[in-house]
Amino acid sequence: MRFIKPPVIISGACIVGKKEGEGPLAETFDMTEPDSFFGEGTWERAESIMQRRTLDAALKKAELSAGDIDLIFAGDLLNQCAASSFGLRGTDIPFFGVYGACSTSAECLALAAMAIDGGHAERAAVVTSSHFCTAERQFRFPLEYGGLRTPTAQWTVTGAGAFILSRDGAGPYITHATCGKIVDLGVTDANNMGTAMAPAAYDTLRAHFDDTGLGPNNYDLIVTGDLGFVGSAILEDFFGRDGMDIKIRHRDCGLLIFSREGQDVGAGGSGCGCGAVVLAGYLLDGLRKGKWRSILYAATGALLSTVSTQQRESIPGICHAIRITAEL
Amino acid sequence: MRFIKPPVIISGACIVGKKEGEGPLAETFDMTEPDSFFGEGTWERAESIMQRRTLDAALKKAELSAGDIDLIFAGDLLNQCAASSFGLRGTDIPFFGVYGACSTSAECLALAAMAIDGGHAERAAVVTSSHFCTAERQFRFPLEYGGLRTPTAQWTVTGAGAFILSRDGAGPYITHATCGKIVDLGVTDANNMGTAMAPAAYDTLRAHFDDTGLGPNNYDLIVTGDLGFVGSAILEDFFGRDGMDIKIRHRDCGLLIFSREGQDVGAGGSGCGCGAVVLAGYLLDGLRKGKWRSILYAATGALLSTVSTQQRESIPGICHAIRITAEL
Repeated sequence: MRFIKPPVIISGACIVGKKEGEGPLAETFDMTEPDSFFGEGTWERAESIMQRRTLDAALKKAELSAGDIDLIFAGDLLNQCAASSFGLRGTDIPFFGVYGACSTSAECLALAAMAIDGGHAERAAVVTSSHFCTAERQFRFPLEYGGLRTPTAQWTVTGAGAFILSRDGAGPYITHATCGKIVDLGVTDANNMGTAMAPAAYDTLRAHFDDTGLGPNNYDLIVTGDLGFVGSAILEDFFGRDGMDIKIRHRDCGLLIFSREGQDVGAGGSGCGCGAVVLAGYLLDGLRKGKWRSILYAATGALLSTVSTQQRESIPGICHAIRITAEL
Repeated sequence: MRFIKPPVIISGACIVGKKEGEGPLAETFDMTEPDSFFGEGTWERAESIMQRRTLDAALKKAELSAGDIDLIFAGDLLNQCAASSFGLRGTDIPFFGVYGACSTSAECLALAAMAIDGGHAERAAVVTSSHFCTAERQFRFPLEYGGLRTPTAQWTVTGAGAFILSRDGAGPYITHATCGKIVDLGVTDANNMGTAMAPAAYDTLRAHFDDTGLGPNNYDLIVTGDLGFVGSAILEDFFGRDGMDIKIRHRDCGLLIFSREGQDVGAGGSGCGCGAVVLAGYLLDGLRKGKWRSILYAATGALLSTVSTQQRESIPGICHAIRITAEL
C-alpha cells in the first residue's frame, strides 16, 4: 500500500523495565521503571499502566490531549488483548483492538496510516506492549518455577511504545505498508520462534521489494521486529540464496535491545513491546537527527497459543512491514 | 466514518453447528454441521475449519478465488485468535488479525470498508467465528464438568460468518461505520455479559446518531450483536430515558438465533460467530430481498479474560456499528 499523502509520525514514546534500561539502548527510552509491578498489585495491571503511561507521554510530546485523537489501534500478547483493553479504557478514544502477536506494532501502524491516508481520521494513536512476567506465566511457566531455557528461546521485553500519527505535521513519514501473509513452514518448537517467524519476514520483505520496486539498497536500515539471533541468520541466509546481501543493512530489535553477552537473554529479545520501544526511541531518533533517511520496519509475529502447542500444531508466522522516511 | 464510495458486500456465507441449525433461523444458514468436531480431532481445529469453509463459500458465491482478495480481516475468541491464524493460513491472502471479542465482526467490516473506501484494497474479506466447545473450556469449565449456568449467562454460538467486500458490484452497501469507545461501568459478573456490554452499545449508538444526524426512525432495524435478553432490556431502557423508543426496531442476534423457550440457552446466544452468521444469512438476505432498506448492525464485545476475572477486575465493553443499506 502506497500512501498518497504519507501520514506523519508526529511523536513516539516508550517505557521499559529494569533489564531493558540496563541494555545498549538505555539512553533512547523515555522512561525506565525499576519495579516490575509498576506500583500495582499484579503484573497484568502493570502492563496496562505501561500502555496508558506511554500513550500519555506520546500525547504530551505532541502537545495533544486524548480528545484530539480520532482512533486508537492497540494490542498486546495477553489472552484477549487484556493489557490494551484495560490500559486504554477511560481514554475515551474510539478503539480498534488488533492482534498480530509480536507484529502488532507494525500492523497497528499500517492500519492507522490507512485510516489517515483514506481520510477516516485526522490523527490516530498506536499503542502496543509486552511484559516479561505476564508473558512467562501465560505462555511458559510460573516465574517461581525457575524453568531452564533453551539457547534458541527469546526473552520477552517489558516495554510499551506509543505513536501519534497525523495527516499534517513535521516528522518521519509512513510512505508504504506491506500487509503480510501467514507463513507456516512446519516449525513446532515453541522455544524457537525466530525460526518460525523468519520465513514470514522473508515473504513480506520480498513482497515489499517486488511491489514497490525498492530494493535493500534503497534503505539505510531494514529492521526486523524480534527474529533474534537464530531467526536473523535464517532471514539473511534466505536473501543470500537470492543473491541479495542484506546483512550490512539488517538489524533486529531483539538483538539491538539487549546485550547477548552480558544479559543472559538467549537468542535475543521478543514481544509486542520489543519492536515498539526500539522504533519509538532509537529508530525515530535516528531518523529525526538525519542518521538515516529511510528505514523498513518489519515486525514479526508467531501466531501460536499454548493450546495449539499442546495440540502439536506447527507455528504460523506473520510479518508486517512499513517504510518510514525522514523526509518526503 | 462516512464512506465516500460505499463498499459493497458482494457476498456473505455462514456455517453453524447442530443447535443453531435447530433454531428459528435454520433456513437462513448456508451450511449446518451436526458434528461438533467438524471431522477433526480437536474443537480448536474444528473452529479453524469453520473459518476456512465459510470463507471458501463466500468466495464461491462471489465467483472469486482467494487470489482475487487483497486483504483479509479476521478474528475469534480463542487465546491469541488462534482459530483465524490456523484456519486462514494457506489462503495466501494478506492478513490483518483483529480482536474485539464479540464485536469483532463489525470491527472487521469497518476496517475492511475503510481499506476499500481509502483506496488501499479493491476487494477485502472478513471472517469471524466462535465455537461453543472451545469457548466453554477456555472461558468457563471443561464440558465434562457439567457446570450449572446462571439465568443471565449466554450460550456461545458455534458458527462462522464470512463476507466479501468490493469497491464495485451489486449488493448491500456499507455507508457508515462508528468505531466504539471502551465503556466500563464496573460490572464484575462474568456470567452477565449483556449487562456489561449494554452501556457500550448505548454509547456507540448515541455517537452514531449524533454524528450522522440519522435517528432510530431512519432505520428499519437496529441490530445489536449479542446483548441477549438482559442486555437488550437495559439498552432499550437507556434509550427510553432519553425519550427515544427503539424497542420496535431493535433486534438482537443473540435473541434471533435461538428460541429461549425451547433451547435452554439462558439469556440468549453470544460469541464472535453469533452476529456474523445472523448478518451473513438472515440480515443480508432481507436487505437483498427488499424486506428492509437500511439496518444498523452494532456488534457488542466484552473485553475480559479469565485472568482479569480472577483478579476481580470489572468488564470493559465495546460496540462497533456499521450502517448497511440495500441501495445507495
